[in-house]
Amino acid sequence: MPRTKKTRSAKVGLPPGSLVHVGEKLSEKSKISLIHYDELSLQEMEIQQISGCASFLKKTGVNWISFQGLPEIPVLEELGLSFGLHPLTLEDILNTDQRPKMEDYGDYLYIVLRMFHPESPDRGELKSEQISILFGANFVLSFEEKDTGTFETIRERIRNTKGRLRKSGPDSLAHALMDAVVDHYFLLLENLEERIEGMEEDLVKAPSAGFLNTLQGLKKKMILLRKSLWPLREMITSLERSESPLINKSTLLYVRDIYDHTIHIIDTLETFRDMLSGMLDIYLSTISNRMNEVMKVLTVIATLFMPLTFVAGIYGMNFKYMPELEWRWGYAMAWVLMLAIAGGMLLYFRKKNWW
Amino acid sequence: MPRTKKTRSAKVGLPPGSLVHVGEKLSEKSKISLIHYDELSLQEMEIQQISGCASFLKKTGVNWISFQGLPEIPVLEELGLSFGLHPLTLEDILNTDQRPKMEDYGDYLYIVLRMFHPESPDRGELKSEQISILFGANFVLSFEEKDTGTFETIRERIRNTKGRLRKSGPDSLAHALMDAVVDHYFLLLENLEERIEGMEEDLVKAPSAGFLNTLQGLKKKMILLRKSLWPLREMITSLERSESPLINKSTLLYVRDIYDHTIHIIDTLETFRDMLSGMLDIYLSTISNRMNEVMKVLTVIATLFMPLTFVAGIYGMNFKYMPELEWRWGYAMAWVLMLAIAGGMLLYFRKKNWW
Amino acid sequence: MPRTKKTRSAKVGLPPGSLVHVGEKLSEKSKISLIHYDELSLQEMEIQQISGCASFLKKTGVNWISFQGLPEIPVLEELGLSFGLHPLTLEDILNTDQRPKMEDYGDYLYIVLRMFHPESPDRGELKSEQISILFGANFVLSFEEKDTGTFETIRERIRNTKGRLRKSGPDSLAHALMDAVVDHYFLLLENLEERIEGMEEDLVKAPSAGFLNTLQGLKKKMILLRKSLWPLREMITSLERSESPLINKSTLLYVRDIYDHTIHIIDTLETFRDMLSGMLDIYLSTISNRMNEVMKVLTVIATLFMPLTFVAGIYGMNFKYMPELEWRWGYAMAWVLMLAIAGGMLLYFRKKNWW
Amino acid sequence: MPRTKKTRSAKVGLPPGSLVHVGEKLSEKSKISLIHYDELSLQEMEIQQISGCASFLKKTGVNWISFQGLPEIPVLEELGLSFGLHPLTLEDILNTDQRPKMEDYGDYLYIVLRMFHPESPDRGELKSEQISILFGANFVLSFEEKDTGTFETIRERIRNTKGRLRKSGPDSLAHALMDAVVDHYFLLLENLEERIEGMEEDLVKAPSAGFLNTLQGLKKKMILLRKSLWPLREMITSLERSESPLINKSTLLYVRDIYDHTIHIIDTLETFRDMLSGMLDIYLSTISNRMNEVMKVLTVIATLFMPLTFVAGIYGMNFKYMPELEWRWGYAMAWVLMLAIAGGMLLYFRKKNWW
Amino acid sequence: MPRTKKTRSAKVGLPPGSLVHVGEKLSEKSKISLIHYDELSLQEMEIQQISGCASFLKKTGVNWISFQGLPEIPVLEELGLSFGLHPLTLEDILNTDQRPKMEDYGDYLYIVLRMFHPESPDRGELKSEQISILFGANFVLSFEEKDTGTFETIRERIRNTKGRLRKSGPDSLAHALMDAVVDHYFLLLENLEERIEGMEEDLVKAPSAGFLNTLQGLKKKMILLRKSLWPLREMITSLERSESPLINKSTLLYVRDIYDHTIHIIDTLETFRDMLSGMLDIYLSTISNRMNEVMKVLTVIATLFMPLTFVAGIYGMNFKYMPELEWRWGYAMAWVLMLAIAGGMLLYFRKKNWW
Repeated sequence: MPRTKKTRSAKVGLPPGSLVHVGEKLSEKSKISLIHYDELSLQEMEIQQISGCASFLKKTGVNWISFQGLPEIPVLEELGLSFGLHPLTLEDILNTDQRPKMEDYGDYLYIVLRMFHPESPDRGELKSEQISILFGANFVLSFEEKDTGTFETIRERIRNTKGRLRKSGPDSLAHALMDAVVDHYFLLLENLEERIEGMEEDLVKAPSAGFLNTLQGLKKKMILLRKSLWPLREMITSLERSESPLINKSTLLYVRDIYDHTIHIIDTLETFRDMLSGMLDIYLSTISNRMNEVMKVLTVIATLFMPLTFVAGIYGMNFKYMPELEWRWGYAMAWVLMLAIAGGMLLYFRKKNWW
Repeated sequence: MPRTKKTRSAKVGLPPGSLVHVGEKLSEKSKISLIHYDELSLQEMEIQQISGCASFLKKTGVNWISFQGLPEIPVLEELGLSFGLHPLTLEDILNTDQRPKMEDYGDYLYIVLRMFHPESPDRGELKSEQISILFGANFVLSFEEKDTGTFETIRERIRNTKGRLRKSGPDSLAHALMDAVVDHYFLLLENLEERIEGMEEDLVKAPSAGFLNTLQGLKKKMILLRKSLWPLREMITSLERSESPLINKSTLLYVRDIYDHTIHIIDTLETFRDMLSGMLDIYLSTISNRMNEVMKVLTVIATLFMPLTFVAGIYGMNFKYMPELEWRWGYAMAWVLMLAIAGGMLLYFRKKNWW
Repeated sequence: MPRTKKTRSAKVGLPPGSLVHVGEKLSEKSKISLIHYDELSLQEMEIQQISGCASFLKKTGVNWISFQGLPEIPVLEELGLSFGLHPLTLEDILNTDQRPKMEDYGDYLYIVLRMFHPESPDRGELKSEQISILFGANFVLSFEEKDTGTFETIRERIRNTKGRLRKSGPDSLAHALMDAVVDHYFLLLENLEERIEGMEEDLVKAPSAGFLNTLQGLKKKMILLRKSLWPLREMITSLERSESPLINKSTLLYVRDIYDHTIHIIDTLETFRDMLSGMLDIYLSTISNRMNEVMKVLTVIATLFMPLTFVAGIYGMNFKYMPELEWRWGYAMAWVLMLAIAGGMLLYFRKKNWW
Repeated sequence: MPRTKKTRSAKVGLPPGSLVHVGEKLSEKSKISLIHYDELSLQEMEIQQISGCASFLKKTGVNWISFQGLPEIPVLEELGLSFGLHPLTLEDILNTDQRPKMEDYGDYLYIVLRMFHPESPDRGELKSEQISILFGANFVLSFEEKDTGTFETIRERIRNTKGRLRKSGPDSLAHALMDAVVDHYFLLLENLEERIEGMEEDLVKAPSAGFLNTLQGLKKKMILLRKSLWPLREMITSLERSESPLINKSTLLYVRDIYDHTIHIIDTLETFRDMLSGMLDIYLSTISNRMNEVMKVLTVIATLFMPLTFVAGIYGMNFKYMPELEWRWGYAMAWVLMLAIAGGMLLYFRKKNWW
Repeated sequence: MPRTKKTRSAKVGLPPGSLVHVGEKLSEKSKISLIHYDELSLQEMEIQQISGCASFLKKTGVNWISFQGLPEIPVLEELGLSFGLHPLTLEDILNTDQRPKMEDYGDYLYIVLRMFHPESPDRGELKSEQISILFGANFVLSFEEKDTGTFETIRERIRNTKGRLRKSGPDSLAHALMDAVVDHYFLLLENLEERIEGMEEDLVKAPSAGFLNTLQGLKKKMILLRKSLWPLREMITSLERSESPLINKSTLLYVRDIYDHTIHIIDTLETFRDMLSGMLDIYLSTISNRMNEVMKVLTVIATLFMPLTFVAGIYGMNFKYMPELEWRWGYAMAWVLMLAIAGGMLLYFRKKNWW
């Protein structure tokens, strides 16, 4: 199959700051929209040209430019010039396989998040997209890889004049965007929880051969999530401790709130992991118990019939002088003997709890 | 079955600070009671309206308003206005699936605890409720999800004029509430200990098929407890180190006492975990030993009867010229041969310690 | 069996500082003895009344009051008043299931230690007692649960005028007491070492069925020891770093010495643990090897006799026209055939190294 | 086979700073080339004598002397004198089995890196070479063990007047060299990923006997990589925190970029490790399942034929008075009986899901 | 066997600082030699009396007194008085089972190291001796338990006027001694490496029954080494960070060099551990695979001959009316039937890849 995903190796040898898209291209077209607002006014528009928003940057209030689908490289370069972005920031926006991080470039803060989409139960892969958020004194830039409508509820809240968002600055908006991304993890957790509960029920009934593969699949997903959650937590901690003047004191309480959510998600994931490892133990022991059972059946049958067959063999011998063969009740006695042996064996097995 | 539990996903998309109850609704009605006391006077009453307690808030002494069952959202909002509570505090009171934490809002400290109820031995699930405690300069607010009478002994101590509580401030009362919650863990530990001892006795006798499931069930419970105990410990540490003027120096010694209890509980839980893992090892090796035993029985029987059956087969052959068959003592000699083989086999097995 | 041990749950609901004995009551009577000494003089006496030692407290020099067996609650309360002890200290002296800790109450330091008694080889349980040591400007209080003579050597050293102890203050005496307790762990370690060596020899010969239980028993004991050693180490560290004026600079070097001993003990215990886990691996693999051996015997026997029995079966058939049966040397040829088959099988097994 | 690799033991007894080559000699000849550049001018030459570059060292701009193949000891000693290098630095350049580290010698910084070459799929060993980078106020020295052209792209970038490199100092060049080395790990990761995916496909089909060896081989490679990556990360951290005046503020952002790459590589490696351990679980359980299957076949066959053979044995007995033998339909009835037994057994096995 | 080793328990009850030899007595006699040197002069002598070296202590330059074999207690006490050593130092020199540590007594630094001797391949035990090094303003004391010539190369270097040692102080000499001890670990590592490689080859061929014991023996050795290496590393770190005026700035670089060696050794040991655990996995799976193979042979044989024996049994029955028995080609048909069954079975096994 052709790889549509560009890997990091495509950049080996290039100087840092080179703008090359790394990762799977999730969307061909990029939609750019601008919202300018302060407590009293609100202006929304779709823009084609970055230069078009230069006039807004001089105004007070918050200017939120959101990209749905990663912008083309020339657009990004223009953006870099207009907003004074560092080449490494531009590079990071295009390298969509990064772990969550926060970087303070003085004039603006750059935040990378990963957003996992709750998957359909029949699909095996867990897809994630990279969300980049930048905010400075009077602007917020957000980059989504796909147009999934994650930020639509935030647009609604901005349109609503009464919300807290309208009264506060870009840091509050950036917080709201982060909050929206982190909240999506809860959907994912519930999805996982349902699956694990389903597997637990399977385990009680009779685990199928595919059980272990399903379990490993879930484990793999959880490893992926963990890989993104631990740096997320670290990032939020460094945001809390950051002394950037771009972040208001009052916003810090809300950042702490996201931190609590993240810890909650990590805790739940750890619990899931413990449950999976418990299920693996039970599964392996179930298999071993079954084998035990098979062995017991074999042993019981063999132990029962071998002595009987031996007795039958004895009286199948062709010796000339075998007194039993001549007896009137010889045949009956042989049966009695064999039934006695069988009965004794069965009693022994019952005592051993094998039967 | 219908899910009565509201999960976090119900809040995805809502701004932080939205008052939505998350978690299982444990009690329909909320009982609100107020105790106002100082060293000399004591006033107790059930209240219907939050506004009713406004007059008390101006007085010196300690005002303890306790909610048994979570309050309705409008009641909570009124409370927030009267006591100047941050929206995130109100939200946290309603999100009843939080891990223990302490937050310093300047005017008041907000503490979240989890209270586990010692379960009946036949029930599988371990239920916990969230206890929220808030205290400021002259008030303490406590929120229980259910009316379980946990704090009744503290009310008694307040009614008793001689106790230390009457002479000290809200921080002492808050400590007493926390102490009552943490002490309940000891009941839980003893319950667990009895079960583990029961399982150990089972293991010595003969572990039933359900053994592993019981063990995993206990493990799951202990994971749940751990999940709540580690943040509890962390919370108490941050309480100890807090420099809030709301906490008296002399109270800190008592906080340290709770810390010691928490460590004691965690230690005991760790010991339990080690015991469970030791029991798992013994169980698995017991199963494997049994299989060994089954195999030995099979091997002994097969090894015993196969040569005998072979001998019988030999003399069951129909060759015309088989001298043994004609002998007078041929049959007897066949028996002697077979008994000799059987005896040799048994000696060999005894030497190998299989018998 | 009746539980003579009072558990923590007996105190649920009581305010902190309540004097209730928690833990097993090891000794009914408490013996109180006082030693007053300085560089030149020495006075020893058994005392009945705490009030009797009040006069000594005004004198300079060191006053060591030692309790062998925990004191009755009224005695303890009187002690608390005379020496100005905090209620929590008194409570901790009676709660005999605590982990080692050090608490600085300003006027005095309170130290809790655990003392394990080297057990007799036939007993399963590992008993420990709590040793409390308190020291202030001119006094040392020590509490043992049992009269085991642990501190007798120290009394001897005090009686000997030349020792370092007589020239130095209460901190040196407290150090000597701690040192005596920690040194006892070495006896325990040697006891454990002997047992582990015994098990290793067993393992080389032939592990009995009880091997795993013995191993788990040792593991359990080591978990108990670890549970007490880690906080011991932590406690000594905090003693070293403590800036209490009650501790002399020169004593700190000796505290460091105890620290080294503790680390040495912990290290040895870790090594034991690694050895036990290595022995478990060998044991499990031995069992699995034995099963392999059993299987091989079964396979060899079955593979040997099945073809032979088949051949015998062939010539036991009653077809009218079976030419071999009529041959003069038919029977002999059958034997040759069977011996050839058996020989071939045995060669095959030898090639496979099964024989 | 003769060991061409000189091990550390060759240096036991020698004073530190002794120049002895430790590690495998990868290249016999050393190629030395010098590039002198500033923003405007560029001079490139191959040099034979270290003394030849002394004149350059007085000029401003950057002087990059690169060694492809380790220099002979006299050359190295001369180099040490010309550039004022510490004997330990010279020793470290020759000890090619070091872990990545950074050392600040005041006048220059010394950096050790390891470079792994993406291996061909049929070779088992993973080869690495040591790259040493030294930079001071106006020079950069780089030492490669082999002439692999890793730094060729950087030479190209220097020749190109427009690049950032020409405008900045030796720290930027050193960063570029480090970046080139770290980027090579991505090639290695992709190589590993392909192999792991191949093994996953194998596992789904039918794992061959060599599966476990391949898996252990990969594990060993990853351990090697880890061993080099953790100190690499540590080294970059200490570079970031270094307060050496040799490193420009603006370069620090780029160092942070390498740090991110390193974390990314470590994360990916951890994921690979989790995948391998998951595959091991599946493999072991597959083997155990197969054994189960073998056992079932044996049990089914034995359980089926033992009773039948017993029946046949019964009617092969030679008793004089066996009524069935005389019956007209005796033989047919025996067949009916045997078929009934076989059918019953098969039904039982189907119920047990063994068939 | 008689224990010649004095254990720690011999000191239980003695005050700290008591001079009792703990550990195995490795050498009966102690050889004392003194080297006095500065840049220009050198004096070497064997001494009998500690008092003999008093005159040297007043001279400038370095006085190195080395003990080969631990000194007698009176000698040690005299040494303590002459050099002003703390009683705990003297005690530590005699307690030869200590972990590496560094202690700063102000006037001198006390360093404990462990030296492992590369063992002969046929011996099981790994022996170590304790090396104590003390250095002050103008003296170095070194204590070896055995006369193994470890420090002979250093004496050579001192005799050689050109070396760095002659120009520098006691800290340099102490470093050289430490370096000599740490370098010896490399010999040990190579010894271990050879053994592990030998085991790997064994594993590929056919692991013998003793494989697991050898593996556990190696593991035990590595645990012993680890137990000494981690505190060694810690000790060197604290030496590096020590602000003792006894250590020169320029010596610190060399201490850092030892640190690098220690890390290198620890890394290698970790790699060995991972290799051993990988080998254990392969070994266990090999055993399980062999069992599988044995089971398959049994199953194939049983499955092949049981139906055949059954057929033979059928035609061995003695029914009066069995038409097949009368047929002319009955016997031949029976053979055809049996060969057909056997052929079918073999085809089935080949399809299952069992053959």
